Amino acid sequence: MRPSKRAPDELRPVSLERGVARYAEGSCLVKFGNTHVLCTASLEDKPPIWLRGQGRGWITAEYGMLPRATHTRTRRESTSGKPSGRTQEIQRLIGRALRSVVDLPKLGERQISIDCDVIQADGGTRTASITGAWIALHDCLKWMRSKSIVKDDPMKDHVAAVSCGVFKGTPVLDLDYDEDSAAETDANFVITGKGGLVEVQGTAEGAPFSEEELLAMLRLSRLGVARLIDMQKDAIA
Amino acid sequence: MRPSKRAPDELRPVSLERGVARYAEGSCLVKFGNTHVLCTASLEDKPPIWLRGQGRGWITAEYGMLPRATHTRTRRESTSGKPSGRTQEIQRLIGRALRSVVDLPKLGERQISIDCDVIQADGGTRTASITGAWIALHDCLKWMRSKSIVKDDPMKDHVAAVSCGVFKGTPVLDLDYDEDSAAETDANFVITGKGGLVEVQGTAEGAPFSEEELLAMLRLSRLGVARLIDMQKDAIA
Amino acid sequence: MRPSKRAPDELRPVSLERGVARYAEGSCLVKFGNTHVLCTASLEDKPPIWLRGQGRGWITAEYGMLPRATHTRTRRESTSGKPSGRTQEIQRLIGRALRSVVDLPKLGERQISIDCDVIQADGGTRTASITGAWIALHDCLKWMRSKSIVKDDPMKDHVAAVSCGVFKGTPVLDLDYDEDSAAETDANFVITGKGGLVEVQGTAEGAPFSEEELLAMLRLSRLGVARLIDMQKDAIA
Amino acid sequence: MRPSKRAPDELRPVSLERGVARYAEGSCLVKFGNTHVLCTASLEDKPPIWLRGQGRGWITAEYGMLPRATHTRTRRESTSGKPSGRTQEIQRLIGRALRSVVDLPKLGERQISIDCDVIQADGGTRTASITGAWIALHDCLKWMRSKSIVKDDPMKDHVAAVSCGVFKGTPVLDLDYDEDSAAETDANFVITGKGGLVEVQGTAEGAPFSEEELLAMLRLSRLGVARLIDMQKDAIA
Amino acid sequence: MRPSKRAPDELRPVSLERGVARYAEGSCLVKFGNTHVLCTASLEDKPPIWLRGQGRGWITAEYGMLPRATHTRTRRESTSGKPSGRTQEIQRLIGRALRSVVDLPKLGERQISIDCDVIQADGGTRTASITGAWIALHDCLKWMRSKSIVKDDPMKDHVAAVSCGVFKGTPVLDLDYDEDSAAETDANFVITGKGGLVEVQGTAEGAPFSEEELLAMLRLSRLGVARLIDMQKDAIA
Amino acid sequence: MRPSKRAPDELRPVSLERGVARYAEGSCLVKFGNTHVLCTASLEDKPPIWLRGQGRGWITAEYGMLPRATHTRTRRESTSGKPSGRTQEIQRLIGRALRSVVDLPKLGERQISIDCDVIQADGGTRTASITGAWIALHDCLKWMRSKSIVKDDPMKDHVAAVSCGVFKGTPVLDLDYDEDSAAETDANFVITGKGGLVEVQGTAEGAPFSEEELLAMLRLSRLGVARLIDMQKDAIA
Repeated sequence: MRPSKRAPDELRPVSLERGVARYAEGSCLVKFGNTHVLCTASLEDKPPIWLRGQGRGWITAEYGMLPRATHTRTRRESTSGKPSGRTQEIQRLIGRALRSVVDLPKLGERQISIDCDVIQADGGTRTASITGAWIALHDCLKWMRSKSIVKDDPMKDHVAAVSCGVFKGTPVLDLDYDEDSAAETDANFVITGKGGLVEVQGTAEGAPFSEEELLAMLRLSRLGVARLIDMQKDAIA
Repeated sequence: MRPSKRAPDELRPVSLERGVARYAEGSCLVKFGNTHVLCTASLEDKPPIWLRGQGRGWITAEYGMLPRATHTRTRRESTSGKPSGRTQEIQRLIGRALRSVVDLPKLGERQISIDCDVIQADGGTRTASITGAWIALHDCLKWMRSKSIVKDDPMKDHVAAVSCGVFKGTPVLDLDYDEDSAAETDANFVITGKGGLVEVQGTAEGAPFSEEELLAMLRLSRLGVARLIDMQKDAIA
Repeated sequence: MRPSKRAPDELRPVSLERGVARYAEGSCLVKFGNTHVLCTASLEDKPPIWLRGQGRGWITAEYGMLPRATHTRTRRESTSGKPSGRTQEIQRLIGRALRSVVDLPKLGERQISIDCDVIQADGGTRTASITGAWIALHDCLKWMRSKSIVKDDPMKDHVAAVSCGVFKGTPVLDLDYDEDSAAETDANFVITGKGGLVEVQGTAEGAPFSEEELLAMLRLSRLGVARLIDMQKDAIA
Repeated sequence: MRPSKRAPDELRPVSLERGVARYAEGSCLVKFGNTHVLCTASLEDKPPIWLRGQGRGWITAEYGMLPRATHTRTRRESTSGKPSGRTQEIQRLIGRALRSVVDLPKLGERQISIDCDVIQADGGTRTASITGAWIALHDCLKWMRSKSIVKDDPMKDHVAAVSCGVFKGTPVLDLDYDEDSAAETDANFVITGKGGLVEVQGTAEGAPFSEEELLAMLRLSRLGVARLIDMQKDAIA
Repeated sequence: MRPSKRAPDELRPVSLERGVARYAEGSCLVKFGNTHVLCTASLEDKPPIWLRGQGRGWITAEYGMLPRATHTRTRRESTSGKPSGRTQEIQRLIGRALRSVVDLPKLGERQISIDCDVIQADGGTRTASITGAWIALHDCLKWMRSKSIVKDDPMKDHVAAVSCGVFKGTPVLDLDYDEDSAAETDANFVITGKGGLVEVQGTAEGAPFSEEELLAMLRLSRLGVARLIDMQKDAIA
Repeated sequence: MRPSKRAPDELRPVSLERGVARYAEGSCLVKFGNTHVLCTASLEDKPPIWLRGQGRGWITAEYGMLPRATHTRTRRESTSGKPSGRTQEIQRLIGRALRSVVDLPKLGERQISIDCDVIQADGGTRTASITGAWIALHDCLKWMRSKSIVKDDPMKDHVAAVSCGVFKGTPVLDLDYDEDSAAETDANFVITGKGGLVEVQGTAEGAPFSEEELLAMLRLSRLGVARLIDMQKDAIA
């Protein structure tokens, strides 16, 4: 039995609360159990110079963690002088995930900045970020259409993400911090509403894993993402 | 009449919510109207080297703002490479304010780190931070006594802070962002439960101000801080 | 009796020497006792981009300290990679103080950079800087008028600054380093020629201070600034 | 047909040249076609403080690229002030890959630093790095045994890596730069001598990919890694 | 007798291998004994802004060292955040040396970047860099003429460099690392094909040196540079 | 005739004022014409860790320039984030020059920091710095002997420096800024009281220079340094 007492294919309680940031064009507070991430989408007034003449827009993402989101306090990245390698890896992942479901030419030469700030961290912050950021982006695009900034909806599909792991030989869904620390293998899956794979990242923490384990985790993640996308649909309804 | 329609001596609706951060030894979500700050107090396991042999403890503070706490998105400080001058000024202010009401030798050679992270900003983030951080610090000290880490209560008094300004010639209390932008003079007051002054910072934004205006703002701030301290007392009751 | 043997309302010997920097448009070596600051005013050939189209000018200030201005050698800020929080706080203070007495639209879209470099430090470096920088700025503006770069004099008033403190219960004027270290309270006042307050910054170093102490320090500072402004008038005569 | 005219399951010409760095404890110049990486393994005389008392060793990796390894010159990272996110991501990947086949307690409290410097870049620099770094690490461990620094061989298995992609709908092995730029999907696989998966990283560059494509790429990568490991065996024979 | 057993006026075995970098406009792998430097010359597509309107071109140089080029591993400069003082000093030297033999107006408003990356270091890396970089620059200019980017040959002369030292009282040519560590005096000479001096840098490592020693080293360096320039001529023939 | 109207072998008016910094163990304000440098010598209370167990001391040097020491304002190095290459080159030169005349073992395991801050710059700041820093160091060592921190005098000899150049074909001594800008060749010489050469740095600014020119400059510099050392002797008499 897993530490959280959940069934192998059971997600933590998930909530997606829209419109939580008064000034942002789109926002969502996403909770995967005790992992809480505030996601905002900001239409930038000054898109970057390199976008000019490209005939398309861009979605970029930044990720941060409050110093005491974690069990013991983490050093603030503004103090250490630069985002860590881990932070940059997650930022790039969130950006790629969202861009995979947006028709960038329909955005025009505009940039939307996604900020995912972890208020509380109990494992799975990157997958919660992607799942919540989709809502923030959706609402930003909706606002842009309401202001006639874009005409057609640039959003092509849903996208959500979930982690899986192999815990004491059993593939399990949506690891919390304790499970993640104890898992032999850790994988993240980013999957679209139509079931297409956007990112598959599997890492052995110790012993290598087998093809069967990879496939079992992929099956679990499909189940999990399908449920998350249903919740996204409910949230924006 | 002031932009917010409030009376000159009227605070914004204030709330102080304790215990909002699952892992921190003390925490408080403070709201001054639309200004929301998450304050945590963390007992550091590794106090800084310079504390050794001092026979006393230390309280330090860090301050941050989520990129989209503001009307238009602000650049993340971890990206710009260092905390801005404004950030450092506020950090030092919060630290000094809290240390003024703590008996540092009673802490022992330990450091408590206060983090004030602005979730939403509508003026007065530094005064809200001090007011909420006192609660977080109080709860951290309470937790330390419950664990017998300290014996006597190191907390000597309450401390809270509020801003004042002169708006179209009238001294007013607790400026929001619109009022702050339009005020001729802007002042911050940090005051203890016994009425002692810890910090007085008045700045002319344009024309200089008079001694009478300084004194009128000081009177208003005494009223405001007294109410804030009453709310602190209710919160910890 | 105070450590310096001075009367409570007695300034240190002050001198203001003009024209000390061969290449600067304006300069002043200011001495408050053993505190010596070299102030220069430089008309920048390339004003910052953001000034364009504003229809007004800007005064900015930078502050530095030679490594051995102090009793023990201080680390050079170019080595530590960035100006400290204290340096940035002082820079912002000097800039605000000078801008409060300059008619910025009369400057045109030009920037004047003030540099205050502490050659020797014995307390009160920020107040000496403001007092001396006014002379440097005055001479820079005079030079600009002589070259017909500006037509009307943008300088509206004098401005000077002085510190006060409460030492063993007695309010005293113009603290030197030893007095500053021993004072219970430390305050800086920036005041114009017409007596308007530009900045009031009072900080308790330990026990809070009372309203009476604040007012007593304000009275002392008015006396001190009036004398400093008389010396500025003599210097430019 | 793919741009390189190779068959879908055909590697580029691979070579592994040992002992190329006069001073390093182990080294290998690896070539995957026009991609050339110089890998060295250095036994550090001063292991990091955090290793003390852990009862085990550590393998860390750094990755760099000469400015003109690429078609157009790339900015030197020492000039831009910090390793890029991409560089850090690759460094972490190389380190994890090698640690997965080393018995860290057998190393003792020692650190081996792997440096992978790209002399020429034509796609697949991270997979070539891992494949060549294994040789450098092998030779460093051999040297350590010859000096009786370690007794038992800490190396548990081979590890190598290869990229795959989907090019015009066909899964292909070992992408060069032109193929990588044109591929719809890009995946990297790190696999051990016994066939265990250490890392699986698949990324859609545009349209999502299917489970079938993932599995086809996994099959190709198994073929490719098996051949690379045969070459490693020849090299160390 | 010197540690390397060479005669006082004997160079180490030197080789100059052209065209070693597939993508660079010019390149040379230069070896002075066990010192190996890869030199490339890159025609920049975007010359720096300050070149515009100057009516002439520029040659700039960067220098780096692979972490394990040295006997014990050296920290990577991208990790330490900035090029060291030594690195910058060498970069400026290489740039000046090459510019002294190029007719910059004939280049047009273009910049060529020279990169000298030390693959293996056994003393004399800066002198080997200059000697090899001349070949890389020569080939880059030849390529530019073949593409009609420049019409007349901007190269005016050869330039090469060599070190000398005083070892146990005897002036010797082309120090390797062991000799450099033991020498009382260390000097570098950059000399053109026509025998003009471009740089003379002599430094006492301990006791000062005499004019006679300086002149003896200058005589040796003329011999050495003449031989290096003959090898440059052979290489480009 | 040279721009300054001086004879080819004529120094600018030189002055060496001792004891100008109240807190430093040794100090000197050196003027070479309009070039003014404040030099201080500070005995560090905490010598660097690497000195421990070496059985000898160390002299280190830092160099800075006030922003408006120059004709047009220069950016402050604390703002640009790091000392420039030029600054680091000069710092290393000053340190080496002084160490060449100090018996480091006699210092004990102590470090003296030299700070050379240019108050006004008109060419030759590095040579003035070395000449003045010798006085500051001398007085610091004298103070250390008076406090019995060292027993024997660690100072072995005088050292001073001067620049030379070739201006319109004529070798001239001690270039000011205008002459330096116009000179074809620029050289700095650091020479001891006994006439030993510590550093010789000659650089062609354009056309290479000849051996005859180098020797003529060396002769001039010997004359100049002899006079500077006479002034050092007068200053400490």
